[in-house]
This record gives sequence, C-alpha cells and structure tokens, in this order.
Amino acid sequence: MKVGIVGIGHGKFGNRSDATVQELAFEPFKEAIEDANNLRREDIDSLIVGSVPEYHMQRSLPGVVAEYVGINPKSTWLTEAACGSGSAAIRTAYMSIKSGMHDIVAVIGVQKMRELSTEEILALMGRVGDVQWESIFGTTFPGYYALYANRHMHEFGTTKEQMALVAVKNHYYGSMNPYAFFQKEVTKERVLGSEDVAFPVNVFDCCANADGAACVIMTNEKLAKKFNDTPVWFEGLGSASAQMSLLRRPNLVEIPSAVEAAKQAYKQANVEPSNISVADVHDCFTIAEIMAYENLGFCEKGKGGKFIEEKQSYIGGKNPVNVDGGLKAKGHPVGATGVSMTTEIVKQLRGEAGKRQVSGADIGLTHNVGGIGQYTFVHILRR
Amino acid sequence: MKVGIVGIGHGKFGNRSDATVQELAFEPFKEAIEDANNLRREDIDSLIVGSVPEYHMQRSLPGVVAEYVGINPKSTWLTEAACGSGSAAIRTAYMSIKSGMHDIVAVIGVQKMRELSTEEILALMGRVGDVQWESIFGTTFPGYYALYANRHMHEFGTTKEQMALVAVKNHYYGSMNPYAFFQKEVTKERVLGSEDVAFPVNVFDCCANADGAACVIMTNEKLAKKFNDTPVWFEGLGSASAQMSLLRRPNLVEIPSAVEAAKQAYKQANVEPSNISVADVHDCFTIAEIMAYENLGFCEKGKGGKFIEEKQSYIGGKNPVNVDGGLKAKGHPVGATGVSMTTEIVKQLRGEAGKRQVSGADIGLTHNVGGIGQYTFVHILRR
Repeated sequence: MKVGIVGIGHGKFGNRSDATVQELAFEPFKEAIEDANNLRREDIDSLIVGSVPEYHMQRSLPGVVAEYVGINPKSTWLTEAACGSGSAAIRTAYMSIKSGMHDIVAVIGVQKMRELSTEEILALMGRVGDVQWESIFGTTFPGYYALYANRHMHEFGTTKEQMALVAVKNHYYGSMNPYAFFQKEVTKERVLGSEDVAFPVNVFDCCANADGAACVIMTNEKLAKKFNDTPVWFEGLGSASAQMSLLRRPNLVEIPSAVEAAKQAYKQANVEPSNISVADVHDCFTIAEIMAYENLGFCEKGKGGKFIEEKQSYIGGKNPVNVDGGLKAKGHPVGATGVSMTTEIVKQLRGEAGKRQVSGADIGLTHNVGGIGQYTFVHILRR
Repeated sequence: MKVGIVGIGHGKFGNRSDATVQELAFEPFKEAIEDANNLRREDIDSLIVGSVPEYHMQRSLPGVVAEYVGINPKSTWLTEAACGSGSAAIRTAYMSIKSGMHDIVAVIGVQKMRELSTEEILALMGRVGDVQWESIFGTTFPGYYALYANRHMHEFGTTKEQMALVAVKNHYYGSMNPYAFFQKEVTKERVLGSEDVAFPVNVFDCCANADGAACVIMTNEKLAKKFNDTPVWFEGLGSASAQMSLLRRPNLVEIPSAVEAAKQAYKQANVEPSNISVADVHDCFTIAEIMAYENLGFCEKGKGGKFIEEKQSYIGGKNPVNVDGGLKAKGHPVGATGVSMTTEIVKQLRGEAGKRQVSGADIGLTHNVGGIGQYTFVHILRR
C-alpha cells in the first residue's frame, strides 16, 4: 500500500512576532486542507507535530496546536530529532498510514525562534552537540560546521569561493520564493566580505534562525485520489544515526548518517542519484550543501566544490538543489524545515513551482540533517 | 501481523545523581537485551526515545543515547507528549513494526529531573498547561489537579479520605518494588496530615519528580519466538487528545482523552474492562487514579472513590491497579513512565511479578496521560 501526499501548506518564514506558535501552525494547516480537495478537517485521523520544544515558552506543543487547529479528540504527539524533527514527523506519519493504524494524517512542522536573543540561541544550539565532552568546551553550531569545512578544504582543496557560490545560488532562487525569509540575491563578493563567524564560515555561509511552519497531509493509496488528482508518492525513506560526538566520527568530511539514509532511500525507491530531478538538501551552512552533494551521490566525494562551481546544482544542471532557496534563503525554523522541503518537492513534482520549476521533474528528494549529523532523514518522492 | 514485547528492562527510579542521562538510558537497555534471549545489539533496527527534552542540559537526546548504547547507524528519534512521551514512543515502535519498516525496535523512556530546583520544575510544569490563557495566571500542576479534585468532590461526594487511600495502596505495593523511589508504606493519617499543596491536594497526594529509565524491545510475530518463549502481545492501542485549556473542556470530572483512548483500545482488543487482570494507570495525583478507574470503565462515573474504599483496585479486587506502586511510589520520570508501566504489565503477564503477582493475569492495560489530559495513550497487552 503506497502512501502519498494530498495537501500542502507553507507559511511565511522569518520574523513572525505577529503570531503565536499555534497561530503559525494554523496557517499552513488551513492551506493544506484547502489544497486537498474535499477534505474536511474531521477526516483527519491524527496529527504529528515536528518541533524542537526547547525554543518555546509554550510546552506540550501538540496539545495547544491540536486544540487551536481543531482536531481534538484525534491522536497527536511530537517528534524531535533536532533540525530533522520535521522529517521524523513525516516518517512517523508514513508508518502510521502504512501500518493501517491511521488513514489520513496531518504533519505540521513548526518553530518559533526569533523571540530568543542570539546568546540564548547560541547556548541552546551548542547543547545539541555532546554536552559532556564537547559543548562544555565552547563548541557552537558554526564552530562544528567550521570543523567540517576546514577538513574538507584540507583534504579536497575546497575553497571559500566555492562555499560562497552555494549562498549565491540559494539566494538567487530564494529571491523567487515568496515564503523565504530573504528574497534578495547576493553576490559572491558580498558573501566573502561578510563578517567572520568561525573560520572559514562567514555570516553569509550560515542560515538564519527563523519562525515558520509548513504542513503536509498524507494518506493511503485507496483514499488519495479522492482528495487530489495528482498525489505525490513516497517511494523510499531512509533514516540513520551517527555518533553525536565528532571526536568519535571516522572522519570530518562527510555526514555518515546521510550516506546511510541515502543508501536506504535509493534502495527502497530503486533509483539512482542521477534519476533525481530535484532535491531539497540541508544547507544549514554552505559547506553542508557541498557535503550533501557528495553524500547523496550527486558527485564523487571531494568534488562538491566543483559541482557548485560548474553550476550542476542549478536548474539545467545535473541535480538541481534547493531551488526554493534552501535553509540559506528561506531561514531555518528547525522543526518546520523538513516539512518545508517536502512541500517544495511536491510543488515541483506537480509542476506548480512557477519560475523555479524544474521542467519535467518526476522524482524528488529531501535530505534533512539533525544537529551536527547525528540524524539524517532522506525521502524520495515521485509524482 | 502481531507485535510483541520480547525484552524488558527497568532502572532504579529516584535521585540518580550517580548517572548522566545516557547512563540512565543504558541500564534498562542492557537489561532488556539480556532479557531477550539470543538478541544481539546489532539486531536492533531502530531506537525510539520517549522523553521530555526541556528538563535536560543535554539536548538532542536520541543522539547521545544512540551513541552511548551503541546502535549507530540505526534510525532514531524522540517522541514527546508530556508525561505520555514513553507511550508515544511505544506506539511509534508498534507502527514501525506493523508497517514493515522495522523488525526489531528498542524503546527507551528516560528522564532526569532531580538536578533542577523545585522552582525550576514548577515553572516548567506550569507551562505544560496553556501559557496564553492559563499558566500565565499562575496555574501549576497540583493546581490543575486540585481543580479536578474539587469538582469531583462537589459532584460525586468524593472525599479526601478516599484520595488518601489511593496513596496508601500505591505505597503498600511500592514497598515491594525494588525499583521504586519510595519503598515504605504510609498510613491514611500520614497522607491526610501531610502539607497542603493546593486544596484538596496534599503533598502525599502528589507523585514525585524522579530520575529514571525503562526499556522494552519489540518485534513482530515471526521473530518473537526466537527471542522469548513468552512474548507479550499488543492487542489494542488507543491514542486521543483533548483540549489543552481546561476552560474549554466540557467538564472537570473526567479526562476526555482517556475515555476516548480506552474506547479505541478496548475495541481493537475486543475486550471489556472486566477482562483486564491488571492495570497500570497514571496516578500523578491521587484524584487522577480515581478518575482513571472511571474513565477506563472499571467502575461507573462518580464511583471511583468508592472503588478504592472497597479495595477493588487491590490484588483480589475487581481490577488490580498500580500494584507496582504507580507513579505515586515509583516516582515519575516523565518520559520513562509509560515504558515503566509497560514493563510491569509484561512482568505480570509472564507471571514474574513475585510478591506483587496477580495470579493468572492474562490481559493487562497501561493508561498513560500526558500533561493535564491533553493526551492519553491506552495499551492492552495479552500473554
């Protein structure tokens, strides 16, 4: 029994001091229900919320969200896998439908981060690394990714210019995405000239903390056509973990959980990297997108820098990546990100991505990394 | 395809300043693997962690736990539903096996709470209620349950003495449970004479915050016999939500999500309340156990006080409840509680509960409430 997506919704990402966390969740939920023709709210069996609780004053998030969107007394809970929380929610919904436990499941990824100060966010982020052995010594998120970047430069000759080109591409596509936090293009010079954060990571190599929410409505093969003429199907789902302490990783030039999750997803979907028409990958830092090209098999290991230099991840290249702007331009409301990626792939596979459309896109992929790579979820979708 | 439990483990609940959160998780994990004969750690496909993240300095808990217990690169994430997080993890594992996505899944419920001060815990707990409309005015957890208790007393004539008898029973059985935080009996007079918290809730009407962890290993029908001669099977699983704001609830004398979840579980399992040999219910406060008797159909609505007065929830009564001591005597490490309940029911159904054994127990039930009733999970198990 196949599982598909019949409704999608996406709120504006950015500074959303206009909305509480439950109001943020409601926006894409409403849109997704309207997107799924003939779906009534009461048809929904279950709500899975992807979010990272520590950012919110309001705890027990599925409780307020379920009440606010009006799905009581249906089943609900939250999934958390750091920045991969949204994809953990989608995987949970997939399993709940596949198992026959539920027929129609709404997944909402939602996060509100902009009320916290930069210091609070930095402290919280650092604790997503191993507290006992690493973050206690002051590692921060940009610091972790700077370790990856330095090692990648050392081993493969990757350059700061190549990293900057990732930002240039993603802001270029972000300029066409009305949901993106940042809708302006940037030049390579601007990225390279932006403030140092942790060498070689500059401010413009980092994505931004954001408020935001996205929603997908999933159902089984029997019901899908009732709600959508062009359901998008899950063909392969990979989920893997890696050592949380970088000190225990075999190397610092790849995310081992991403390699493993991709392998699982390709195998289940029975496709090759070259079959992927369009991908949304986890570019929390520009080096992360370069590693993603390699870990997903879009190019050989060590050739990620060249891949962006040759514009292979632009529309028209071998594997268009983050043509919605990625985390880099959209902003990164952590729990919402995996769901946001999924809505973009659905749009692309339906041919509804407008100016950003990859022509003839038939197979899409999401790659959602949690934390510093302790989790990765890879999903392959097909129209 | 049935899903069953082939291994269980339970750590000591209480003040566990001797162990980090990942060390707490490892104890029952090791025990559960040893309990499942012939199971090797590498046979495990996936690890679901039930926990409430906000209590821990270490964030991204499944990351450290997966590394520490040694299951990388297998799939892992966390489920959260306030005090029902452990049962959300079990439900997730059930769906993942039932869907064919995974064969052998470990569920660890783990929580460390005793490092926080009472003030910190109180503040955190209040925010599990609706922040915008309720906890902002100062509601605390005992306050919420005091509302239930007052209304129950008003409508049904339930008495403080009857509530105290729940504590007496649970501490009586807790005195025989080596994993319990409190292993001493208490008298009714001691409960009634204990300090006022929020009328009519006294200190001894409340469960205690605790550190602790528990683990179950689940698998499908085909594999179960390989690992255990007496697997215990899931027969019915209910999951429901209710309005998070008490102000929007239809009444304050029941937990509507519990009534709904119980209905689902009984229906799937095709059993009646009278068939339940033994139950572990969510007695975060003594009034909660009295409401649980009613919401699970062990007695009529309003007769819960009488039910304990007549000792119907003792071994030998109509429906023995919390004969492991319940949250009241074991302590309540929130994410661990639902898994702890499950290990007790498995022990009872295997006939391994020693002095606390309900003779001939064949069908057991867990009732795990999240927050102030915004979630309830009810699971029915059979040997």
